[in-house]
Amino acid sequence: MTQDTRKLIKQLLKGNRRAAARLMTLAESMSPEAHAAIKQLYPHTGKAHIIGVTGPPGSGKSTLVDKLIEEFRAQGRTVGVVAVDPSSPFTGGALLGDRIRMNRFASDHDVFIRSMGSRGSLGGLAWATHDVVHILDALGKDIIIVETVGAGQAEVDIIQIAETVVLLSVPGLGDDIQTIKAGIMEIGNVFVINKADLDGADRRYAELQMALELDRKPDGWQPPILKAIATTGEGVSEVVKAIQSHHDYLIESGEIAQNRERRYCAQLETIVEHSFIRKLFVEPEEQALFQQLVQEVNERKTDPYTAAERLILHLIKQKGN
Amino acid sequence: MTQDTRKLIKQLLKGNRRAAARLMTLAESMSPEAHAAIKQLYPHTGKAHIIGVTGPPGSGKSTLVDKLIEEFRAQGRTVGVVAVDPSSPFTGGALLGDRIRMNRFASDHDVFIRSMGSRGSLGGLAWATHDVVHILDALGKDIIIVETVGAGQAEVDIIQIAETVVLLSVPGLGDDIQTIKAGIMEIGNVFVINKADLDGADRRYAELQMALELDRKPDGWQPPILKAIATTGEGVSEVVKAIQSHHDYLIESGEIAQNRERRYCAQLETIVEHSFIRKLFVEPEEQALFQQLVQEVNERKTDPYTAAERLILHLIKQKGN
Repeated sequence: MTQDTRKLIKQLLKGNRRAAARLMTLAESMSPEAHAAIKQLYPHTGKAHIIGVTGPPGSGKSTLVDKLIEEFRAQGRTVGVVAVDPSSPFTGGALLGDRIRMNRFASDHDVFIRSMGSRGSLGGLAWATHDVVHILDALGKDIIIVETVGAGQAEVDIIQIAETVVLLSVPGLGDDIQTIKAGIMEIGNVFVINKADLDGADRRYAELQMALELDRKPDGWQPPILKAIATTGEGVSEVVKAIQSHHDYLIESGEIAQNRERRYCAQLETIVEHSFIRKLFVEPEEQALFQQLVQEVNERKTDPYTAAERLILHLIKQKGN
Repeated sequence: MTQDTRKLIKQLLKGNRRAAARLMTLAESMSPEAHAAIKQLYPHTGKAHIIGVTGPPGSGKSTLVDKLIEEFRAQGRTVGVVAVDPSSPFTGGALLGDRIRMNRFASDHDVFIRSMGSRGSLGGLAWATHDVVHILDALGKDIIIVETVGAGQAEVDIIQIAETVVLLSVPGLGDDIQTIKAGIMEIGNVFVINKADLDGADRRYAELQMALELDRKPDGWQPPILKAIATTGEGVSEVVKAIQSHHDYLIESGEIAQNRERRYCAQLETIVEHSFIRKLFVEPEEQALFQQLVQEVNERKTDPYTAAERLILHLIKQKGN
């Protein structure tokens, strides 16, 4: 680790925002230096309450998150936000909307917002998101909100990162069988019907209630369904209360332990997977072999499984040396 | 490979539907036997036109795909459909809606529909989807439609599978900045505004047009924006024409070569990645080490990167023996 990185970590642990931002950029590089930095700051993590906010595009995630920040700040708690936007497989980078948004809280030093786009096709987004959460945690944020599109289907699977998952939906959009699926229902700890002044909010409520009823366990956490209008702030304090109740429940019931284990498993899996596969795209020799095999598959001289076996054998031999 | 699998492949290549279904179930097992089967049938693939249909939940994907099937069948072409539903990380399995749907075409032997849910957390869905497409291809289907939720953010990234991507949207749902993002726009070859009789269709059209304009290259394929009402079939034949124009364009321009290479790269990457990581969850010894390391990470006795290094070293030694 360079002297510079060591200094950044020291500053981070004292609450320095600039150091946090620079370490996040380093984390996104997924370099050995980045890993060394995370190793160093890791013992200082594990204190924040990590909240996931997810829902379809247009459901008002960013607006709700902004209001959640305000509520948590009013309680005197510090907040970090990771806004994950994996929608672009090609360009990456932050959106205009996110820049406007970050400026809103720019004067509050106890709010830190980081926007993340997709960086290449190596699946590095999930990896880097975990690391950015670690950095916010080590920075001392009480609350970390991870905002991401979709649920269960997202590149960054929110249940692999968050302790409490807030599932957003909006009236109208979800009146066919597609939207109420057991799987999506299962991951939500708090359900929010946003834009609750729109037509169909009551119907949506009834649908969610029915779906939850089908799923209900005799004991354990009963996910509440809340109505909100994020643009005006209506219902937002109830959302915050429900989030806190869920966190209390996790701790009192002892379920926090399984919750943590699930998340650590996911992260470890991600790192092992990508440490290995990245070699194919970083080392020239492996790159060349990979390209050659793709060509052979394309020409039907070989098949994908035989090609994969040859690549794995090669990678193992390389590592062995 | 067992005698039974060998027989199934023989039957598949003669167009036997039952054999196809059984091979798909085998493919989903991701077993060595499944890989052996794909190796065997692989030389018989590469003939179908693979079309991806993607869009947010509630945008009417299934309805549009049903109408596309009818149009292609009216042209005398045979059709295979893979409906990918990764929304459930826990339960998996097909939905009621899909069953109803498959029955609709049950009497037409030139239509084959397969529904796939998420199978565990090993990311096997992308892998199995590739294999099911290979099986449909070897079965001799002219057109293969892969229907999946989301775009760019889905576990099954549609541009890694399909030659032509149809991007569905609906009026209303997408009137904020979230929905028109460079990344999502880039993957679409044909844009369809479904439910075009709803309020906001013209606005949606203008938004898409503007977004495409920003992205326009001086030459190459210009993605059309089409309006449709899938429930009544209105506009669907124009969608089919646009899909065919795109395919013609790929072939005439020679872009089909890059298109193929991109897809083969993605598949190879998926196989290498998961062949490796699966050991962690299949072999008892590796499972135990994995669990132990998760525990150590949880207790902050180690960090995720150090744990990953130990796992990789162990896996390599195992393979070396």
